[in-house]
Amino acid sequence: MCTIGGNVATNAGGMCCVKYGVTANYVLGLEVVLADGRVTRVGRNTVKGVAGLDLTRLFVGSEGALGVITEVTLRLVPSPAEPRTVLATFADLQGAGSAVEAISRAGITPSIFEFLDRTTIGAIEALSPLGFESNVGAVLLLQSDDKAAKEDAAALVALCEEAGALDVAVSDDADESHALLEARRLALPALERLGDWLLDDVCVPRARIVDLVRLVERIADDEGLKIGVFGHAGDGNMHPTVIFDGADQGARRAARRAFDRITSAALELGGTVTGEHGIGRLKSSWLTRELDPVASDLHALLKQAFDPKALLNPGVALPR
Amino acid sequence: MCTIGGNVATNAGGMCCVKYGVTANYVLGLEVVLADGRVTRVGRNTVKGVAGLDLTRLFVGSEGALGVITEVTLRLVPSPAEPRTVLATFADLQGAGSAVEAISRAGITPSIFEFLDRTTIGAIEALSPLGFESNVGAVLLLQSDDKAAKEDAAALVALCEEAGALDVAVSDDADESHALLEARRLALPALERLGDWLLDDVCVPRARIVDLVRLVERIADDEGLKIGVFGHAGDGNMHPTVIFDGADQGARRAARRAFDRITSAALELGGTVTGEHGIGRLKSSWLTRELDPVASDLHALLKQAFDPKALLNPGVALPR
Repeated sequence: MCTIGGNVATNAGGMCCVKYGVTANYVLGLEVVLADGRVTRVGRNTVKGVAGLDLTRLFVGSEGALGVITEVTLRLVPSPAEPRTVLATFADLQGAGSAVEAISRAGITPSIFEFLDRTTIGAIEALSPLGFESNVGAVLLLQSDDKAAKEDAAALVALCEEAGALDVAVSDDADESHALLEARRLALPALERLGDWLLDDVCVPRARIVDLVRLVERIADDEGLKIGVFGHAGDGNMHPTVIFDGADQGARRAARRAFDRITSAALELGGTVTGEHGIGRLKSSWLTRELDPVASDLHALLKQAFDPKALLNPGVALPR
Repeated sequence: MCTIGGNVATNAGGMCCVKYGVTANYVLGLEVVLADGRVTRVGRNTVKGVAGLDLTRLFVGSEGALGVITEVTLRLVPSPAEPRTVLATFADLQGAGSAVEAISRAGITPSIFEFLDRTTIGAIEALSPLGFESNVGAVLLLQSDDKAAKEDAAALVALCEEAGALDVAVSDDADESHALLEARRLALPALERLGDWLLDDVCVPRARIVDLVRLVERIADDEGLKIGVFGHAGDGNMHPTVIFDGADQGARRAARRAFDRITSAALELGGTVTGEHGIGRLKSSWLTRELDPVASDLHALLKQAFDPKALLNPGVALPR
């Protein structure tokens, strides 16, 4: 189940963040119940405002560790124009990576900018053949919902072709757009069918996506595991998904090791251990590895100030 | 002098916030020196990330009360397309207000969306005649820097005309665009020439701008003062500017009373006491009037946690 409250508490992301930003960008104000039972309203009803500290943003994404969010005031934006979708296939990662860089610099603002690796594409073809040839090593899926969507799509096609795409398809209407996005919708379901799975969520600078995927390929080889990578290329936010046999203890250990190595690789590439899923329980040991020691102290200071008895979501999100 | 550090510490705004957001939207990470002399890095180098609390956002706009910002990592965006500018005159506030509402709902994203009232227009004509007729009661200045700027401008012209504009001009090139914006550039210099001045900065829901300007007109009448209103219509962020004779003690008191009544009116209209200039010293008594008592307590709690000896910017921004 996906709730507005859950989205706010985790500062959730998704496919359209590359244009529209994350949940936090839409939260103007909150009603919050504090650990001592007091109720407060933070933020405002206006699109701008700088009175006092940004308590709204402090609660957004705090994963329930500082207070319980009971009401949310959201900013609305007008519905977008009818989108155009572009699907480009590449023989290898390098071509897709070049396209990502060229598109990021082109002054186009895609509303969707997604990546699928060779393993993910193979899994999709095994589940529901969409016609990807066996020489396809990477896919980019792009959408523009701008008023100039048609021009944007033509520019995106040209940039993918210049980067050496094998094949580029572009939608003319909503049905075709929907059909082209099918590969992205199938990515996780297709990988899930291959075994037990551990879904990671890391974010690196866009220019390091290719390095990240190569490192994941090496880790998969080392550990003898299948790891599919898909995610939000426009944000550098990738979801390497480790497939393993949960009945095999050695494979379970290898999967957890691979997961940790991937998370560590993201940090080494100048990235973060979580782009949009949050720390939660799964990554509770990782926050202090990402934060500098003083920033970790500030987290503890804030937790102590807001929740001195550690009543709220103990053991989740913040370092203990 | 305007510095990046000052922009970040105040979470500064400006004319293009209606499309591009405020300073905070571009700050990915910070280096901060804390009150106890320790140095920390908060935030990240990626466009997305949800590891831990949003300390970056807590420092942005904190007006130096929680730490000293010594380095800023900013997000960059590609240069926009060449803009088109639209200037529309209206006989009265109601017409301009209708245009503001219609444009806000139209799915256009202007990059500039400014308002000038009758008093400001009169001051501009007195300083440097731009040819506004005496029947002009309000001006809207709009710009689009979208790839579809020409279409946007045509749509903005149509919406202003439908709302009953007296006259609408649209730029064909950069020089004309620059010329049409001259009225906005002259707004504050023109008002400043009329006497001593006290510049307010309040933000109300966009639909309440007309109510705010009417209240300001009433306050000006009551206090026997001239008050020009100009500002960012697209954000509801207005800058009522009280003109007075600083040599006259009664006028000084009336000006301060008018300033306070305007700030109070913004709160009554569901707005905030500061849209982009911050609390500083001038509005130090206003923060606790805007915040609910529990949120005020949280501000004090944070100040105590970050700066227990009150070394940082004492008396500024946060309630004492």
